[in-house]
Amino acid sequence: MNAPETTLPILMREDREGVATLTLNRPTQFNSLSEEMLGELQAALNAIAADKTVRAVVIAGAGKAFCAGHDLKQMRANHSKTYMQKLFKQCGKVMMSIVEMPQPVIARIHGIATAAGCQLVAMCDLAVAAEGARFAVSGINVGLFCSTPSVALGRAMGRKEAMEMLLTGDFIDAAEAQRRGLINRVVPLEQLDAEVKKLTDSICAKSAVAVGMGKQMFYKQLEMGLDGAYQLAVETMACNMMADDAAEGIDAFMQKRKPEWKGC
Amino acid sequence: MNAPETTLPILMREDREGVATLTLNRPTQFNSLSEEMLGELQAALNAIAADKTVRAVVIAGAGKAFCAGHDLKQMRANHSKTYMQKLFKQCGKVMMSIVEMPQPVIARIHGIATAAGCQLVAMCDLAVAAEGARFAVSGINVGLFCSTPSVALGRAMGRKEAMEMLLTGDFIDAAEAQRRGLINRVVPLEQLDAEVKKLTDSICAKSAVAVGMGKQMFYKQLEMGLDGAYQLAVETMACNMMADDAAEGIDAFMQKRKPEWKGC
Amino acid sequence: MNAPETTLPILMREDREGVATLTLNRPTQFNSLSEEMLGELQAALNAIAADKTVRAVVIAGAGKAFCAGHDLKQMRANHSKTYMQKLFKQCGKVMMSIVEMPQPVIARIHGIATAAGCQLVAMCDLAVAAEGARFAVSGINVGLFCSTPSVALGRAMGRKEAMEMLLTGDFIDAAEAQRRGLINRVVPLEQLDAEVKKLTDSICAKSAVAVGMGKQMFYKQLEMGLDGAYQLAVETMACNMMADDAAEGIDAFMQKRKPEWKGC
Repeated sequence: MNAPETTLPILMREDREGVATLTLNRPTQFNSLSEEMLGELQAALNAIAADKTVRAVVIAGAGKAFCAGHDLKQMRANHSKTYMQKLFKQCGKVMMSIVEMPQPVIARIHGIATAAGCQLVAMCDLAVAAEGARFAVSGINVGLFCSTPSVALGRAMGRKEAMEMLLTGDFIDAAEAQRRGLINRVVPLEQLDAEVKKLTDSICAKSAVAVGMGKQMFYKQLEMGLDGAYQLAVETMACNMMADDAAEGIDAFMQKRKPEWKGC
Repeated sequence: MNAPETTLPILMREDREGVATLTLNRPTQFNSLSEEMLGELQAALNAIAADKTVRAVVIAGAGKAFCAGHDLKQMRANHSKTYMQKLFKQCGKVMMSIVEMPQPVIARIHGIATAAGCQLVAMCDLAVAAEGARFAVSGINVGLFCSTPSVALGRAMGRKEAMEMLLTGDFIDAAEAQRRGLINRVVPLEQLDAEVKKLTDSICAKSAVAVGMGKQMFYKQLEMGLDGAYQLAVETMACNMMADDAAEGIDAFMQKRKPEWKGC
Repeated sequence: MNAPETTLPILMREDREGVATLTLNRPTQFNSLSEEMLGELQAALNAIAADKTVRAVVIAGAGKAFCAGHDLKQMRANHSKTYMQKLFKQCGKVMMSIVEMPQPVIARIHGIATAAGCQLVAMCDLAVAAEGARFAVSGINVGLFCSTPSVALGRAMGRKEAMEMLLTGDFIDAAEAQRRGLINRVVPLEQLDAEVKKLTDSICAKSAVAVGMGKQMFYKQLEMGLDGAYQLAVETMACNMMADDAAEGIDAFMQKRKPEWKGC
């Protein structure tokens, strides 16, 4: 029932009310992250990062799977270390772009998310899954430890929990993924879009300036010691407080009215 | 029913059997952390850190709320970047003092803990909440991302769990806060003091030397790599072992009697 | 019912189908980690690390307890700071060897695991416990904060969860240990060996090259910032991909057959 891939781009972008939805569209290949797909994702994330009309990003998948990771066939057809370094570096850059862009990025997971597909979930700021979604870092089953996914996984859940997935390649279900901190919410499939919309509505009602400054500071400070983290946070919060939106927000709160963000 | 604030100090200290209880006492302002409150907290924590009669600290709030964060009215009345830097730095220093002092600090949360009030909970060594307590980092609702609270929150729970709170400003209840690691225990309100007392009783029965050395080492080593962390811990533990209390503790254990700590 | 300790070594090693099981065998001393036991453990781990026939390691305990930590009697009989530094350093080296060796190490916990015994559980890659197993860092009860165990504990669970155990010395049960991330699985005692075997079977079915490269990279990257972590992971994954096992694994997957690992 999926449109033939020749008639639609491999990455579709739809913008609605400040939310850009990027849909991985290689359903017959389980939306695997080929070179071309990674290239399209990078271009789309770059464009969105610079686009002030976009307040939140949703990453979704067409067809049965969310994303099955790298394109193994393409990898085997390009069997050189140089190619592999380039490919994994390209993929890492896409993942870092999610963390570095000012807008929150939400993974919408309706089916399986494996290997670099599971990494994609782990790197998003937030993630909502359907009850039937399942998660694995399955590279180890084909002789390839999911090293780059382990960077994301080891920061999204406990190290023993991550290690078990990395060593066994076994799936965990959505409820377990939520318990471990890999995803935020689990709902029946028919409520998946509504649940994602709750989050995007909430984010779109906030000041873009505050969200952008805050998101970027959050990941930076996590890599610092407590002292350094507080120094960075103090400076960020003082800057944020001097923005028009903070003055407006606090005044509106004290006057018991809705704030009107100016975006600066 | 609360005493008028002019007759009682904004921070009350009560000492009983080695436990110092600090009660934030601005109930009509939901115990918000004004400059003056932060100043009083800093002075009290400094005094306690140097006071060998105090074995454990409890931080509580008077009135309906535990603590609603910064004093927004005071902030709006002092709208300069210099003021903000000074204020957030002052607040960060109070938070760091909790981590750096030798005595364990326990948050006793009976009502809402929001923004820097939630940060206060996250920075305490331990936290016990009543079932009705609720937690949020709600600055984002007024255009101010809770940057300094995010330093504490991002180290107390999973990063996606923290990010959801920071971006939405939504409340979580006490059970969820416990599940995420933000607090240790949840009990009915009428058992809150008894549950806090279980922890302070347990701590007061331990050697102050061992507790002080251990607490300070714990947070330091968390910021190091495994090798460096073990080096610090080995040195700390060898020093601890040479203290009289360790010799007494082990001898008492082997002789099946209660230890008598000498505090050195 | 345990064999007298004079007739059996204090550390027993049994190899079966690629799995080396190390059994701490000082049952009447609750398998405490005396100098001699640490020496035997170090020698065994060193030998296994260099032994390509071993694909997975299980650490178990004889008698009622898994491991009760250091040998307090021996410590009190050697009361000097030099001795303590040497002892804790020796212990830390054993713990680091678990992390650094290429084979996954699984703790099989059938009884209590306390102090450095709890640390041993925390440092293993994976851990499976019987329902009756219990965990504590109880040094604080004898005037000795579990500093070196806290290095492992603070990385295996939330910091407030760890701090509560370190300050109170209280036990947690196996279900709670799993919830906190200290162990992976809990089963009735009579299923403990079968559950451990599920994990070793799964690991033995994987490529040793991929497992070894991946395990060692995983812990290294956890200590880095995101950028550095991705650089290391990209290089590791490219190397892994150029190993014969990855080519074989992917080809077998695409041809829907079982891979035959060559171990390179």
